[in-house]
Amino acid sequence: MRAALFYGKEDIQVKDVPDPTDSCDKILVDIEWCGLCGSDLHLFQHGPEVFGDLTKHGEELPYALGHEFCGRVNSAPPGSGFKHGDPVMIDPRLPCGQCIECKSGKDYGCPKQGGIGYNHSGGLAEKVTVPARNLHRLPETVPLEFAALIEPFAVVMHAIRKLNISDWTEQDVLVLGGGPIGFALVIALRSYKPRKIIVSEPTAVRREKIAQFVDLVVDPLERNVPAACRQLCAGGVDVVFDCAGSAPGLVDGLDALKCEGKYMNIAMHEKPMTLSALPLALKHVTIIFSAVYNATDMDETIKLFAQGTFHGYEGMVTKRMLVDDVVKEGFKELIEHKDDHIKILITPKAHLIEG
Amino acid sequence: MRAALFYGKEDIQVKDVPDPTDSCDKILVDIEWCGLCGSDLHLFQHGPEVFGDLTKHGEELPYALGHEFCGRVNSAPPGSGFKHGDPVMIDPRLPCGQCIECKSGKDYGCPKQGGIGYNHSGGLAEKVTVPARNLHRLPETVPLEFAALIEPFAVVMHAIRKLNISDWTEQDVLVLGGGPIGFALVIALRSYKPRKIIVSEPTAVRREKIAQFVDLVVDPLERNVPAACRQLCAGGVDVVFDCAGSAPGLVDGLDALKCEGKYMNIAMHEKPMTLSALPLALKHVTIIFSAVYNATDMDETIKLFAQGTFHGYEGMVTKRMLVDDVVKEGFKELIEHKDDHIKILITPKAHLIEG
Repeated sequence: MRAALFYGKEDIQVKDVPDPTDSCDKILVDIEWCGLCGSDLHLFQHGPEVFGDLTKHGEELPYALGHEFCGRVNSAPPGSGFKHGDPVMIDPRLPCGQCIECKSGKDYGCPKQGGIGYNHSGGLAEKVTVPARNLHRLPETVPLEFAALIEPFAVVMHAIRKLNISDWTEQDVLVLGGGPIGFALVIALRSYKPRKIIVSEPTAVRREKIAQFVDLVVDPLERNVPAACRQLCAGGVDVVFDCAGSAPGLVDGLDALKCEGKYMNIAMHEKPMTLSALPLALKHVTIIFSAVYNATDMDETIKLFAQGTFHGYEGMVTKRMLVDDVVKEGFKELIEHKDDHIKILITPKAHLIEG
Repeated sequence: MRAALFYGKEDIQVKDVPDPTDSCDKILVDIEWCGLCGSDLHLFQHGPEVFGDLTKHGEELPYALGHEFCGRVNSAPPGSGFKHGDPVMIDPRLPCGQCIECKSGKDYGCPKQGGIGYNHSGGLAEKVTVPARNLHRLPETVPLEFAALIEPFAVVMHAIRKLNISDWTEQDVLVLGGGPIGFALVIALRSYKPRKIIVSEPTAVRREKIAQFVDLVVDPLERNVPAACRQLCAGGVDVVFDCAGSAPGLVDGLDALKCEGKYMNIAMHEKPMTLSALPLALKHVTIIFSAVYNATDMDETIKLFAQGTFHGYEGMVTKRMLVDDVVKEGFKELIEHKDDHIKILITPKAHLIEG
């Protein structure tokens, strides 16, 4: 099969490799579409050690990255609950299953967490074998050409639900960043009908794409974001979603919050986050860190995706390509022209591109 | 009257000044006891501008610091609800009453917050005039020689309640710092019966005083605090209370937390807090900032104090003195021998010391 093999920092080579084979506890999946995620880019730019334990204890390099992917079951062992042709979404998480966190229903916090596409071969290939527990069956009403988006939607749904806010109609929200996570967050959050949604995003392409879904889009390089929030929402905002991971965004977001405001971080801050305690104490701020999701989030997200709740998700996809082109037109395009894109989708099947 | 007048950085002078007079909307209080707080020390060491807005827009310097104090009503205007001799605790907060936060019941987050003992004359004097709304009547069962402790207890009660934890018996807790806030926190928290309480405190005097109330006391200079937590509480702790405000404590506390752990900061971090996002994201940590309290917290704290809920609070008081001695034996003692003390109480009444 064709696979985009990750050898290490800035080294991905698309090659022919033997097909993986299913085994008594694994299911062979034909991959249809795989999204490129910020963390794939992070691995490409910095090498596997950038995620520490997440990329240890797995397969030996090289293997395929990619953890946002869907496909159809090729073959499955009897009794697995799956059969040839079933459309499936992959939950890439590989928690240990043995630790306190796993046993108490918090497997998303497993300290030995690994992942398909992180330390095991993932979605930038024609095929993959995965344990049955990592598969979620997709309703036939979900178009496979968009189903890979379910993964980032599960990320944002976990973050929204973790805030445990009973009445979103009384919440004013600032979203930092209109990239893939920020875009998915806005689309998902709209179904909760918050009072106002403001997005802070420095690039024109992304501002234009998100504008139709929100009350106000601000260019933080041109305008004071906290002041804009206070102008639109008396006193500031109730909730900030950090989908950017930038130091100036952090300052803006914390400043924009009202008393008892909540700062939900879903971003990858590459540099240490620096907080000044006194103003946060006087405003009684809460900062919440969220990442990934659990199996329930994934199931619920699939259901909502199938029901059409995430109206407008199609706008997230800014480019599609064959896996053969993923280095030049995918990774390098995202590094050099990141701001022109939200989500790039990759397929190993030429007819899906041509069609 | 005698008053310890704050002129600015490192300049407090005890002098005779005219008594304040009550007015149509203010009550004259004879002060009995006033606690020295870390923020008094902070003002003394750094000057009034260290708290920014909190010390603006008030009286002109000099005036008396001190915001943890109790006394008896000297005279009160008719209809105020108070009369001569009533024992009272002072809520020193002076929110503006006009802003969105004040009008939505969050006056503790008023951005124009001032305070008695911050930007208006406070408790390090014989008398003070305060608005009726700042007074809380004390039951006669509350001994006035300890009542000033109610203020720090209201601080910790606000933080405990803000966590909104329904069953503390399933929570393992790490408390960073065994100073006045850490000590009060431990005493107050014991009434909630958490599964384990561990205290990290570098000074021997404070470790000895707190040991009888908790499951484990660790010297962070001698022992790895997160490892000690994981040894006593499988997987780490559920809640950290930061009552220290130190950078190494922050690192220890975040490391000691389990997945979905809560880090409650009640401390004054003088330096910026630096966070590494990835481990916090993978552990799904929540960081909550709490400061001061509201009128309900103060009322509830007085009730619990009177009921004897805070068993062992007497151990907090490590020294008592006349207001005349407050610079040398109070402020300078706390700067030079901070670790020998938890709470120092000051009175303007010589007979209370002699008796």
